[in-house]
Amino acid sequence: MTKNDVKEIQALKQSKGRKERGIFAIEGNKLVEELLKSNFKVNNIFVTETWVEKNSVFAKKIVDYEIVTSKQMEQISNFVTPPGIFATAMMPKHKIEPKDTDNQLVLLLDGINDPGNLGTIIRTADWFGIKKIVISEDTCDPWQPKVIQSTMGSIFRMQIVETDVVKFLKEVNTPVFGALMHGKNVYHTHINNKGVVIIGSESHGIRENVMPFVSCPINIPRAEGSQTESLNASVAAGIIISEIFRKQLL
Amino acid sequence: MTKNDVKEIQALKQSKGRKERGIFAIEGNKLVEELLKSNFKVNNIFVTETWVEKNSVFAKKIVDYEIVTSKQMEQISNFVTPPGIFATAMMPKHKIEPKDTDNQLVLLLDGINDPGNLGTIIRTADWFGIKKIVISEDTCDPWQPKVIQSTMGSIFRMQIVETDVVKFLKEVNTPVFGALMHGKNVYHTHINNKGVVIIGSESHGIRENVMPFVSCPINIPRAEGSQTESLNASVAAGIIISEIFRKQLL
Repeated sequence: MTKNDVKEIQALKQSKGRKERGIFAIEGNKLVEELLKSNFKVNNIFVTETWVEKNSVFAKKIVDYEIVTSKQMEQISNFVTPPGIFATAMMPKHKIEPKDTDNQLVLLLDGINDPGNLGTIIRTADWFGIKKIVISEDTCDPWQPKVIQSTMGSIFRMQIVETDVVKFLKEVNTPVFGALMHGKNVYHTHINNKGVVIIGSESHGIRENVMPFVSCPINIPRAEGSQTESLNASVAAGIIISEIFRKQLL
Repeated sequence: MTKNDVKEIQALKQSKGRKERGIFAIEGNKLVEELLKSNFKVNNIFVTETWVEKNSVFAKKIVDYEIVTSKQMEQISNFVTPPGIFATAMMPKHKIEPKDTDNQLVLLLDGINDPGNLGTIIRTADWFGIKKIVISEDTCDPWQPKVIQSTMGSIFRMQIVETDVVKFLKEVNTPVFGALMHGKNVYHTHINNKGVVIIGSESHGIRENVMPFVSCPINIPRAEGSQTESLNASVAAGIIISEIFRKQLL
């Protein structure tokens, strides 16, 4: 690994660096295992000697890895204590069309900006069989380490596309559900497994210019007397997706 | 604020220091506002000059605050950039008895160790009207800053008691629901608004010595073909609590 290689990989720490190259990085056994099981194109796998010693079985399965020094690993890692295995891979090029919503439910995230929330929502969507997620341009970068970590590998099975959500929604001809304070009780809302479900940002919800496209406002009812102002975004998304799934099973 | 005061408050950064004193600390406008609305006994409110200048209306409402230097604030704060308002308060002394489960649903957390998850679960429980949460001794400390932050103020409305959960469960005479891989589909499980719901730890679920007390194992079904291994603990808790709540509304 040359000094220039280190620099190129360090550039992947920034969203800009990742986008320009179409490459992202992951770390740790679990995620690398999930990456290798996926259809993603792997670029490089870097490991330390210490890692190989402790993970000889896994190392034999990988075959195509490059050994780097602990110092180099520290330079490229996002962890204070690097797990010792680091991989880079090509970002997939998915397409999500408005007409995809005719026969499946597409999740649309409008400005989710906490990486943990985004990752958790991707993981939940994967659990309940959602295949496609559209994210607004101001939603946090799904290829940043904390998001990938929180997906626990679901990122490798989910089609995620960043797009102009207003332009997308203009061409959608199926119901558009949106989590809104004054929406209809989600428990009593008829939701087919097609259309779009919008989850708004943690702080200001669904944006004003997106609001007109919400044809079915829904709401998670709160217990009488509760003084809580809101639910965590990933919990709210989880409850709504679970409700939609429950109705498919009826 | 003397040097010794600073030292005493710094001791609250550690769980041990908090427990010995029965005192915890919070920071930021939102949380201090929630604290002042609550029944908690407030000890001290520290603010910086800069904070007072920017928050004159709020400052007038508080009245009883002490101005500290920016340097002192940096010493006591848990943030790199302190919000400028810092309060200490007495931990409440709640009691939760096994017979409390006769007429309400009590949440039992068995080893939740991510502060964000714990805080989010407390917030969700508050939303759905749960009043009491029992936590095992190895669940993370609910009075640590990250947990309190994630509750968004719900910690001031929730009765939380750390206890020997096995001893507690031994005396419970109501149904004990536990989220388990091979449990019954939660959507089809009859759950009254009484008894106990156990949520296990993120990594190893409900502990072996707790397992015998689960009289009704429940499970959140996964979509056919999904390869996700699990849901995030706070999402799973959210879906289960929402399901229980939905059934009360039927």
